[in-house]
Amino acid sequence: MSRDYQFSLEVRYYETDAQGVVHHANYFKYFEIARVEHLRTIGHEYAELERDGVLLVVNKIACTYRLPARFGDTLRISIHTKRARGARIDHEYQVHRDGDLLAEGTSTIACIDREGHVQRLPEYLLIDA
Amino acid sequence: MSRDYQFSLEVRYYETDAQGVVHHANYFKYFEIARVEHLRTIGHEYAELERDGVLLVVNKIACTYRLPARFGDTLRISIHTKRARGARIDHEYQVHRDGDLLAEGTSTIACIDREGHVQRLPEYLLIDA
Amino acid sequence: MSRDYQFSLEVRYYETDAQGVVHHANYFKYFEIARVEHLRTIGHEYAELERDGVLLVVNKIACTYRLPARFGDTLRISIHTKRARGARIDHEYQVHRDGDLLAEGTSTIACIDREGHVQRLPEYLLIDA
Amino acid sequence: MSRDYQFSLEVRYYETDAQGVVHHANYFKYFEIARVEHLRTIGHEYAELERDGVLLVVNKIACTYRLPARFGDTLRISIHTKRARGARIDHEYQVHRDGDLLAEGTSTIACIDREGHVQRLPEYLLIDA
Repeated sequence: MSRDYQFSLEVRYYETDAQGVVHHANYFKYFEIARVEHLRTIGHEYAELERDGVLLVVNKIACTYRLPARFGDTLRISIHTKRARGARIDHEYQVHRDGDLLAEGTSTIACIDREGHVQRLPEYLLIDA
Repeated sequence: MSRDYQFSLEVRYYETDAQGVVHHANYFKYFEIARVEHLRTIGHEYAELERDGVLLVVNKIACTYRLPARFGDTLRISIHTKRARGARIDHEYQVHRDGDLLAEGTSTIACIDREGHVQRLPEYLLIDA
Repeated sequence: MSRDYQFSLEVRYYETDAQGVVHHANYFKYFEIARVEHLRTIGHEYAELERDGVLLVVNKIACTYRLPARFGDTLRISIHTKRARGARIDHEYQVHRDGDLLAEGTSTIACIDREGHVQRLPEYLLIDA
Repeated sequence: MSRDYQFSLEVRYYETDAQGVVHHANYFKYFEIARVEHLRTIGHEYAELERDGVLLVVNKIACTYRLPARFGDTLRISIHTKRARGARIDHEYQVHRDGDLLAEGTSTIACIDREGHVQRLPEYLLIDA
């Protein structure tokens, strides 16, 4: 199972704010897309996980912003799975435009069931590192 | 039961876009707040309606924009219930800043149950007009 | 110049609401993406138009919802330019999932300059119909 | 100048996602509201700061989530200014519902000018701590 995934996305007009740049809260949406797309590349649809009672929720998340992104930019989003053990997954993210690092982030995702109780990750999501 | 309700809200920074004005899609969020707040003034919490299996969904909605709103603006939102009969409610909306009409809209809301089937509005929401 | 364009997009988790479906306001974001992508297929980047002082703003927009979209759905967005004359463009939109029509919309876009004054559309955007 | 401010806000339907709870990215919007409202209580409108060429941008931000918030909840948002020195302000945030701590966050805000260059905070925003 690959720990890393990269893909491109385009900044949408509705993601910008009155400073003319992508509003900082939208990077957390980019990170969410990254988790979903990464999961897909290793053979799993998050929609199916939820139907099977495997809910992944954000326990903590952070982002540091270095350079602003603008409408019209194509961004390169990278996600790295640092650890997936017990009931949690730790990810790292980077957002580049051409050679420039615009932002980088980290998150811890918890696995819960439909009642909101923490449960172990399914075997196929574990990474022993 | 009053058909009309007005309240003020402030434009939030994250509602603006790179043109420096409130992104047009956010007016539909203002209209949603208006429906929820209006419902409250006539004694009902929408969260409770949903718990009782009464779901209100947007069937159609429209907005015409006359003047832009900006961060820092205080907007006056007006909602008028034109009709509430059978399984649908028709609303009209206006958005003012001081004396100026910035936008106006209309919507038709449908009442459905948890399975998504259309159901009659509860008695207390009907307006015979 | 082609009046029509179609493309696919995926419903993102952050676009859903507590009813488990795409929040109705997000269809207006899909329509915006459609306008930007359509413009690109006819050789223009909206980011460049704005740099040239050609701003396109929504004058009115509407959507009718027939069936809900859910996280995991791939949607087919169609845009049709009905008319582009003087200072305005009229578009029509459809949202399909497989064979099903989920939603359809219309909009009128106005062309303004940086000061917010209405200006004629650039020649290359006109459609004489 | 007070370093602390608290206020209440209501969860909006459009802030929820398909898990039935407030989407995690929206807490960063609550924090933004907190900064704007706090600034107001000490006598400054952020809209005016921007007109004066004083732009505050998020340099880094983080949130830890303990319990989910739902539509219908009234949340108590607390903001604490830890430090405001040179060109940066450090804030801490808490989100409560009744007695329960739902989430807590931190951010570092940088002061820049219209060209994006870092500039010292205006005197009236400094806190020597």
